[in-house]
Amino acid sequence: MPGKNAFYAQSGGVTAVINATACGVIETARKHRAQIANVYAGRNGIIGALTEDMIDTGKERSSTIAALRHTPGGAFGSARYKLKGIEENRAEYERLLEVFRAHDIGYFFYNGGNDSMDTAHKVSQISRKMGFPVQCLGIPKTVDNDLPVTDNCPGFGSVAKYVAVSTQEAALDVLSMAKTSTKVFILEVMGRHAGWIAAAGGLAGSEPGDAPHIILFPEVPFNKRAFLKRVRECVNRYDYCVIVVSEGARYRNGKFLAEAGTRDAFGHAQLGGVAPVVAQMVRDNLGFKYHYAVADYLQRSARHIASATDVKQAYAVGKAAVEFALQGKTAVMPVIKRVSDKPYRWRIDEAPLSRVANKEKMLPRRYITKDGFGITEAARRYLQPLIRGEDYPPYVNGLPKYVTLKNVSVAPQLKTKFVV
Amino acid sequence: MPGKNAFYAQSGGVTAVINATACGVIETARKHRAQIANVYAGRNGIIGALTEDMIDTGKERSSTIAALRHTPGGAFGSARYKLKGIEENRAEYERLLEVFRAHDIGYFFYNGGNDSMDTAHKVSQISRKMGFPVQCLGIPKTVDNDLPVTDNCPGFGSVAKYVAVSTQEAALDVLSMAKTSTKVFILEVMGRHAGWIAAAGGLAGSEPGDAPHIILFPEVPFNKRAFLKRVRECVNRYDYCVIVVSEGARYRNGKFLAEAGTRDAFGHAQLGGVAPVVAQMVRDNLGFKYHYAVADYLQRSARHIASATDVKQAYAVGKAAVEFALQGKTAVMPVIKRVSDKPYRWRIDEAPLSRVANKEKMLPRRYITKDGFGITEAARRYLQPLIRGEDYPPYVNGLPKYVTLKNVSVAPQLKTKFVV
Repeated sequence: MPGKNAFYAQSGGVTAVINATACGVIETARKHRAQIANVYAGRNGIIGALTEDMIDTGKERSSTIAALRHTPGGAFGSARYKLKGIEENRAEYERLLEVFRAHDIGYFFYNGGNDSMDTAHKVSQISRKMGFPVQCLGIPKTVDNDLPVTDNCPGFGSVAKYVAVSTQEAALDVLSMAKTSTKVFILEVMGRHAGWIAAAGGLAGSEPGDAPHIILFPEVPFNKRAFLKRVRECVNRYDYCVIVVSEGARYRNGKFLAEAGTRDAFGHAQLGGVAPVVAQMVRDNLGFKYHYAVADYLQRSARHIASATDVKQAYAVGKAAVEFALQGKTAVMPVIKRVSDKPYRWRIDEAPLSRVANKEKMLPRRYITKDGFGITEAARRYLQPLIRGEDYPPYVNGLPKYVTLKNVSVAPQLKTKFVV
Repeated sequence: MPGKNAFYAQSGGVTAVINATACGVIETARKHRAQIANVYAGRNGIIGALTEDMIDTGKERSSTIAALRHTPGGAFGSARYKLKGIEENRAEYERLLEVFRAHDIGYFFYNGGNDSMDTAHKVSQISRKMGFPVQCLGIPKTVDNDLPVTDNCPGFGSVAKYVAVSTQEAALDVLSMAKTSTKVFILEVMGRHAGWIAAAGGLAGSEPGDAPHIILFPEVPFNKRAFLKRVRECVNRYDYCVIVVSEGARYRNGKFLAEAGTRDAFGHAQLGGVAPVVAQMVRDNLGFKYHYAVADYLQRSARHIASATDVKQAYAVGKAAVEFALQGKTAVMPVIKRVSDKPYRWRIDEAPLSRVANKEKMLPRRYITKDGFGITEAARRYLQPLIRGEDYPPYVNGLPKYVTLKNVSVAPQLKTKFVV
């Protein structure tokens, strides 16, 4: 009897290395065809399962699958789509399992953040209740690095490296021009609730006076007076001031410095544009010439400057999820366990999805300097290994050679349509 | 009799490779000590000469000078400071020559854009008139690629590569999320008057439907109706739309889409913030979810993704300027002469400063598609070789190992102060 099929879906914001995880899943599954006949991927994530729009990864050559390891974005499409609670929308879960049954899917690999881990957990519960047990494995992914239990999240190391390198480079530029031009440079980075990405900017400098001179974290209530005082001090002392600001920077009352007022599918406030707000504050109060950059998607898609550590870990969690499934496990997620800082050593461990779902891990206070504007040595010890190593994609004619899949559809088996 | 000293200054906005030019100047000069005793660098560019604040590059080890080749920013400081016309401010020219005379400077290497070539040209004229002839050599540098005569400008190839790679990567990200998230992504790039940098974004895609779908050039008057129509068509046809917009994009009446209203030292309007303007236009008229990135200084300091072609050329123009000086030439600038497209071949040629000074080279109309939103095959043929090759800096602990010079001051010889 051939093995059951596996379903793999990417969820939420993509990263520079989520495809490395897909590569780990598919390559490992291909080594165990007796247990896993084929890997179907959801076109646009979980929506592909609900609408029975799945991709047959078996149609892709092994060299193409291997190239996923160095290709950013989500190769099968990802989705910001959260299944509601079972009580609220039982129909979605039933539909999912109907599709899984129709395609003989016995394994569900869900590659995402804490919302997705919640979904995977619910699917594992309901599938058992409905008498069609599916092994549900969460696979961590998020640039925000805010999943609990795991030491860090695949996707974070690369965005951290991008932000650290970009801060270092822009600082050299600003410093060399500060005499007659820009004195204050502001880099806006991601991190809606947790300041991990902003903290990574702190790796750019290590000596007193090095940029960045100020980091604005979501975890530290914004104090305009203290901030402006520090900017002035920096310009007086070092001739320039480099600021890394998290999109989630907020006032004591919880109001974001820049709230667009719109909300995404998960109900989170959609942010953007904190850099110009900070820039204007500097100009209006201090009169310094400023410039700002908004890294936005560039930071999370920058596979060209990915962390080799991150790429390895992204692959490893994909591989481990399949191995856990083959061992009969369900409702678990592979996590990265740090064994030592120096030398940096890590291994893959497992955590029950119930411990991961819907929880956020903030930057601990001990990672932030007392004044709230920088990172501590403890933060450096934690962050530094995660950006280590370069893993360049191959280039042709000056551009990275990223792969595009054929993404051949699996023939639908059901007569019913499902509208999401 | 020992040779005379040389004075080298960086001018205007720095680039990822201007230090590679400095490296070419200093390494070449060091091979001809009989003619060039030492290279003094202006601290903060020409201001360092006026204020007699010069750096003794002779105090730096050869390994440090070699590391300039892979270090972005301006190692000695650059300045946005334009000498006025000789009639308007003769005192500045006299002071410059007073300093040159006091330090036995017989060679003036000025590394900058068209304003700086004008200055170098004037200094060569006045020094002869004043009976203290200094050999003045311009060395091209500008990310804007807008200098005439030279086929391209050192600094441009690297920003072009950064923009092309970033567009390619962000497009993969946006495409994979477009079903449920962002449909329109806007990347703002530099290029105040000339659309060369925006055009480089076009290298990211080559097939119909590939991103970027729209490029907004300064050379093409912005037509809101045609633009919005194209955005809608793209989203309908490809599910997403990637836009690269030059900071210099403007309406038919010459008004910039985003004019900050302030002006820099050269009297140019200081721009910034066209991306949010375009984003809001898309949202208000079409309702699509959007994101935008502002690359700002990240693009011109991104030595980590420099073009190997650019690094070679940046070094070559520095080396050639010294060689021209040794041959007794003055009032000339080394230019890059393209010998062939395929295979790409180039050599260094020379151009009189009078032909370069104060002239801007716009993107020719034949490089822009008929509809005004893309680049032609001719543009690709021109641009493509300039981004070719990777030249990675060395890394330590996950970060590029950029060099910082000691920048030891040359002892002042003059009793007079000069205030700029």
